[in-house]
Amino acid sequence: MEQTILNDVTALVEGSRDAMVSSIDDEGYPNTKAMFRVKNEGLRTFWFSTNVSAIRTGHWQKRPQASVYFVDSEGFHGLMLTGDMQVCTDNETKLAFWKEGDEQYYPQGPEDPDYCILRFTAERGNYYHGLSKHLFRTEDMPEG
Amino acid sequence: MEQTILNDVTALVEGSRDAMVSSIDDEGYPNTKAMFRVKNEGLRTFWFSTNVSAIRTGHWQKRPQASVYFVDSEGFHGLMLTGDMQVCTDNETKLAFWKEGDEQYYPQGPEDPDYCILRFTAERGNYYHGLSKHLFRTEDMPEG
Repeated sequence: MEQTILNDVTALVEGSRDAMVSSIDDEGYPNTKAMFRVKNEGLRTFWFSTNVSAIRTGHWQKRPQASVYFVDSEGFHGLMLTGDMQVCTDNETKLAFWKEGDEQYYPQGPEDPDYCILRFTAERGNYYHGLSKHLFRTEDMPEG
Repeated sequence: MEQTILNDVTALVEGSRDAMVSSIDDEGYPNTKAMFRVKNEGLRTFWFSTNVSAIRTGHWQKRPQASVYFVDSEGFHGLMLTGDMQVCTDNETKLAFWKEGDEQYYPQGPEDPDYCILRFTAERGNYYHGLSKHLFRTEDMPEG
């Protein structure tokens, strides 16, 4: 991927509060929901925080297949990444991502059994801008 | 579904220029992309227009499973519908949706072999607003 395109992609991700995160449900249908972008390392690893009891957490526990999509609808460009979603319920990871205010959702604090961290590892990417399209594999990308 | 919630859902859909439309790719991963909402009948049937040669058109030709998601990220509400996507390549349907300006994408006009209409039929819905959630089946909904 050319550096100028990589710069555009990185600006799109870093400028996005939300990502559209997709799973596959028990009936085999894709499911999508907006989630806050909590943290990422380049275009390879993304973290989100959610409830263990959330419907989609259950999907990924059964099928890790996921996609993460960033879009700027006004600028007609978007980045879609596909890869696997890991549901992290260990206290070390949970504590590392805990932030002030999370207790309103998870009253028991960072060890709340309903609090978990999702770790997405991208394998493939598709960046489009207008009618141009760039398919890539994340293993070929520089580390973020 | 209560009438007040149905009103909120309808306002969300009618106020959205775009929908986030998902397919399942050949490797079994969900794929998502923003598409213009071309037309809909209530919450049951939605139409989109795209290229026959588009990657995702090929996905639905193999696997009709789809989702259509409308989101107002600022208002923290969203509607996700799951159902099947039909790829319509017949000239009658294509002509019915053809509009001025489409020839910039499909130079051969409404019968351009690369132009097609996608017809999504929703079966299930999930509307959330803040932390409240409403699951429903579209067969229980009034016609739009």
